[in-house]
Formats: sequence, structure tokens, C-alpha cells
Amino acid sequence: MLHAKVRSETLKGIVDVVSTLVDEAKFNVAADRLTLKAVDPAHVAMVNLTVQKSAFEEYSADETELGIDLDKMKEVLRLSKAGDPIYLEQDEEHNRLVISVGNITRRMNLVDTTGMSDPKVPNLSLPAKIAVNSDELQKGIKAAESVSDHIALTASSDGFEMFSEGETDSVSLKLPKDLLVSLECKEKVRSLFPLDYFSNMVKAIPPGTVVTLSIGNDFPVKLEFTMADGKGTVDYLLAPRIESD
Amino acid sequence: MLHAKVRSETLKGIVDVVSTLVDEAKFNVAADRLTLKAVDPAHVAMVNLTVQKSAFEEYSADETELGIDLDKMKEVLRLSKAGDPIYLEQDEEHNRLVISVGNITRRMNLVDTTGMSDPKVPNLSLPAKIAVNSDELQKGIKAAESVSDHIALTASSDGFEMFSEGETDSVSLKLPKDLLVSLECKEKVRSLFPLDYFSNMVKAIPPGTVVTLSIGNDFPVKLEFTMADGKGTVDYLLAPRIESD
Amino acid sequence: MLHAKVRSETLKGIVDVVSTLVDEAKFNVAADRLTLKAVDPAHVAMVNLTVQKSAFEEYSADETELGIDLDKMKEVLRLSKAGDPIYLEQDEEHNRLVISVGNITRRMNLVDTTGMSDPKVPNLSLPAKIAVNSDELQKGIKAAESVSDHIALTASSDGFEMFSEGETDSVSLKLPKDLLVSLECKEKVRSLFPLDYFSNMVKAIPPGTVVTLSIGNDFPVKLEFTMADGKGTVDYLLAPRIESD
Repeated sequence: MLHAKVRSETLKGIVDVVSTLVDEAKFNVAADRLTLKAVDPAHVAMVNLTVQKSAFEEYSADETELGIDLDKMKEVLRLSKAGDPIYLEQDEEHNRLVISVGNITRRMNLVDTTGMSDPKVPNLSLPAKIAVNSDELQKGIKAAESVSDHIALTASSDGFEMFSEGETDSVSLKLPKDLLVSLECKEKVRSLFPLDYFSNMVKAIPPGTVVTLSIGNDFPVKLEFTMADGKGTVDYLLAPRIESD
Repeated sequence: MLHAKVRSETLKGIVDVVSTLVDEAKFNVAADRLTLKAVDPAHVAMVNLTVQKSAFEEYSADETELGIDLDKMKEVLRLSKAGDPIYLEQDEEHNRLVISVGNITRRMNLVDTTGMSDPKVPNLSLPAKIAVNSDELQKGIKAAESVSDHIALTASSDGFEMFSEGETDSVSLKLPKDLLVSLECKEKVRSLFPLDYFSNMVKAIPPGTVVTLSIGNDFPVKLEFTMADGKGTVDYLLAPRIESD
Repeated sequence: MLHAKVRSETLKGIVDVVSTLVDEAKFNVAADRLTLKAVDPAHVAMVNLTVQKSAFEEYSADETELGIDLDKMKEVLRLSKAGDPIYLEQDEEHNRLVISVGNITRRMNLVDTTGMSDPKVPNLSLPAKIAVNSDELQKGIKAAESVSDHIALTASSDGFEMFSEGETDSVSLKLPKDLLVSLECKEKVRSLFPLDYFSNMVKAIPPGTVVTLSIGNDFPVKLEFTMADGKGTVDYLLAPRIESD
């Protein structure tokens, strides 16, 4: 069972963060929070989301699973503007989710969640930790896009660098320590990533959000940030591309 | 003969309302007003337009017919901004319309109107009448678009509803009596319409306009509204789609 | 050798003016200025650009040639906003140009300039000279675009006219003497030009710039204007299309 009232921008934040990796997703509903774990179809990236009950204006729920077509959710969100309240109501009899925005009511068939097993979140030990404004990441991605399909993330005790190299050109964004929110790094580490995945993840983060990146040597990158005034937390994991020398 | 001076936004309103159904149209010019009746190529929808002489800043005319390519008219309108005066002058010798906007003069061949006979406006008795802000109709259409190609319009003594049903989802916009400008309806009536036509008609109506819809049971819908500060009136008629049960 | 610091909008102005005719270009770098002459691949139009050292915030150079891929330059400019300083540094050892915008550094292979010979600027005697705001030219081009692929430029002692004629329609923009910045014309002259070239050239001129057009009878048109607060000068030449009567 789920009954919830949520501000349009909160729901949009949740949907954006997940839909960058998957089209359909299983939300695990609990009495005190909503969680989701999903891996993209190519098994390159993972999202791990937790939204507390307090992120909602109203929330009452029994333990259940909701399979949701995220494109349909986006269609409904387009009918609202920031600040509008959205009502979510599970219709267990018809296996539907009933969504109301103003005078509009959409009844949406739920997606079958059999076979949507929760991926296991790997336990990684990533030696470097960089907290940075997401706008800086956006800049580095924009610069890299015209040069290569890959992006290397490097951390040292001096700062953080995003670097891309194409056949004729290279581009780098260097963020010295004083342009970062915080930096924990003893030894220099570097990993290479597919630019499209990294770009899509960063685009799903609201502008101006502080993101904590954890990186290692040829290890996945972890991006952590909060949303809904700290009442929601998101972890992204992205697998590295191994460099051939 | 026609000589007229008209504000850009007035002419744009006239062109938009007609061009949603036809590419070329025959305007009937009279000494005191301009009228037009046109049916779309698929014979599903009709527009019936009357613009009084007083909607123009200057207007002097003898009875005549002007066949106009509406796309060309839009090109000229794109050269002006709201408030700009536009001059229209019939050049009978060369069978042209001469349009001036600022220092630009466009000479436009008129379209042959032989064979463009005026359609007969059917005399319909539609039991329910709903006056509503066009913005509400827009909302209902936007919600319906992701669900189905059809839209059902329903009126009862309680209010007005726009409803669409697809294979897996349905969506409805319910407007209770107090959200309508006025409502005349004794018995519940319902008709189904092709969404694309209904959407195009409503899009041609300036935002914030009060529209009067007349509906019945499996009958055409009539949309009436005024433009040019009440000096122009438009009737749209749209044929119903008969539901197969 | 080249080391320069330049405001983003100044560099953008230079790139826009040249890239409308060619994708790659050879900049002739001298101690006191930068010059460029280029002809488009179809040999219909020519650009002749001079930018003084004083247009740059910093500039030190030895005589050299830089072959530049203008699309790459545009990519870098898109990473900056008006007012941002951009640093250009020739890396002679690797035959690269190193461009820095904020914390971003792009290393760009230079293009081979062998075979990029400087075109000879023809010495033309054009009897009529019209100085006009580029916004007026934009208006005339926009009006002409829906009617024809050509545009005729006419000057007389009364004023300047842009005229286009299609199969069914014609359009003209007439600028009497008092709407021009200046006019020198004794006898009426007229030449016809390909609209796409003329349009692309005028689009590369910053809005609100005074342009001096020199025209004759079936002769090329010359467009002269300054940029970078008068520290850069641009001449465009466009070959006429000879009219078949």
C-alpha cells in the first residue's frame, strides 16, 4: 500500500536520477522510506537511491514493490510545475498507480517486477575522495565532448583533473585544491570512464549540488549526493574502461 | 477592392485560426466585414470566421473574394512584431495582394478561388453548453496526448470532463462546475473526438480565451470564441468518432 | 611564436567572420597584428581581415603562420562566456596551439598551411557607397528568403533597395536616404547576388554594426565593417550573379 503527497520537483529529482540508467524500475516501498537499486542494461553503471518519508508532504505505506515505467512518470511531471503537489495512490485491486496533479488524474498500469532482482552493491575501497560542485563537472564534460568518447579522472594531493585525449587534440580541466569543497588523497590515482555514461549521470544531478567522487586506480568511480533538502541520498557507480597501452 | 491597415497580432490571430485546417483559403470581403468558411481536406472539421470592419485600423472594401496562401501570409507576419501596423492592398490589375510591413513590401499572387465553394454550416441542436478558459482545455489535451489518439468530452449537471483511455493507462481532467465560466447541461452527454484535430483547434485559440463548447451524444462539438477584442468571432465544428463497443 | 590574451567575444567575432566562408584558415601572425585572407571553396566570396595588436589584452608574436580548424575554435569558445579571457599559446615543438579558458586547457593540432596561398584582393572601382545598420540588411534578407534564392541590391541618389523576385511573389526593402547612415551615389546601379552567401556574410556581422556596402552594375559587392572597438577591420567581397534577360 502507498499513499503519498509530494512536491513536483522532489518527484522529478527522483525520476531523473533513475531514468538516466533505466526505462523501468522497481521501487521498494517501506513504512519509513522508499529505496531503489538498479543497473543499466549494459551492466556498466548502478544507481542506489534512498528517499526518507520526510521528503514527502504526506506518506503512508506498507511494505510493497512498485514497478514503474519512468517515461510515463515524466509525462505526468510535465503536466505540473515546481511547487505543485502530486498525489500518488496505489490501486492494489487493478495493479495500478493513480497519480493526481491538480484536476488531472492518470491511472497507470504497474510494470511486472518479477525478474527485477535488486543488484548487489559492491563493497569498494576507493582511496581518493573529492567533493566538488556539480557545475565544475559539467564544465569538464562539455570540454571533453568534442575531443574523445572517454574521460580520465585523476586525483592527487594537489587537486582533481578531468582529461580527454583524441587523435589530434586533448583537453583537460584542472581543479586545484582551493576550487574543491574538500579533498582526501594521499597518492595519485587515475581511472578512465566512458564519457557518455559519466555525462548522463552528472546531467541528472541538480545544478549547484555538491557531489562527492571516490576514485582509485582503474577502479569504478562512485558519485554521492543528496537531494530533497538532504532527505534523499543517491549513489552512482560507474565501471572503468581499462586502458590499453 | 480592399485597402486595410491592421495590427500584426490581429492578422496573426485570423491566419492561425484558419491555417490549422487549410493551407489556402477564400476570404469573402464585404464593405463592412470579412468572412470565411472552410472545411479541412479530410472533411472532419470546419471553421466559420467573421471579422468586423472595426477590428481593422483602416478598412475600405468592395465585395470581392481573395484566395490566399496562408503559409505566405505567415512568412510576412514573421517580419513583424506585435503592435506593428500591416497594410493590405488588393492589386486588381495583376491579381495580387500587396502587403507592407515597415519598409518591406511583398507582392503576392492571389490563389484561384474557382472550385473553393463555401461549405454549408450544419444546423445542430447540441444540448450541453460549457464555457471554459482555453488554458484548461490545453491542460487536458496535454495530459491526453501520451495516452491515446482520442479524447472523450463529457458534460453533466456537475461539470465537464476530458477523458482518454489507452491500452494500459487512462487519464482524465475533471472540471467541476465552479472551475467553469458557465455550464448549461440537464442530462449527461458524451462524444468521442480525434485528439489531433481537437488539439490543433485549441492551439489556434489565443491563451486565456473563454471558449464555449457545445456537445451532445455522439454529435459534433462546436467551439465558439471571439478575437480582436470581440470584433471577430470564430466557430469551429469537429465531427465525432463513433465508438465501437 | 604567438602568446596572446583576448576577450572571448573578440575571438568569437574573428572566428565567426571567417568561418562563414571556410572551415580551415591560415592566420598570418605579425609582431603588430594578425591578418587573414581567404576565399570560399566555390570561389564566390572572399574575406580580408586585419586585427591590430591593441585588440588583444596581451599580445607578443614573431612572424608566423597558424593553420586553424575553425570548428575546434568554436568548441572552445562555447566553453566561455562574453568577457572571459582566453589565452592562446603556440607550442612550436609539437606544432600545436594551446588554448586556455578558466581552468580548461585545450591542446589543438595546427592545420598544415602548405597550399593555403593568400588570394589576391582584386582592385575594384565601385561607384556607389551605402553605409547602413546591419540590422536593416538582416530584415531585407529575412523578407527575401521566402521568395527567391537571389537578391538584387540597387542604389540610386534617393536611397538603397534590396529586391527579390520569385515565380509568383516579389519582395522589396526600400531604405530612403534618411534611413541610411550615409549615401554616395550619382547614377542608379544594380547587381544581383546569391542570397545564401549574402545572408551568411551579414549573419556573421555583430547586430547593430554599421556596414559600408560598395556596389556597381553587375559588379561584386564589397561589405566593410570594423570589429573589436575599431581595432579590427573586415572586408567581404561577393561575386555577382549575372542576370539572363
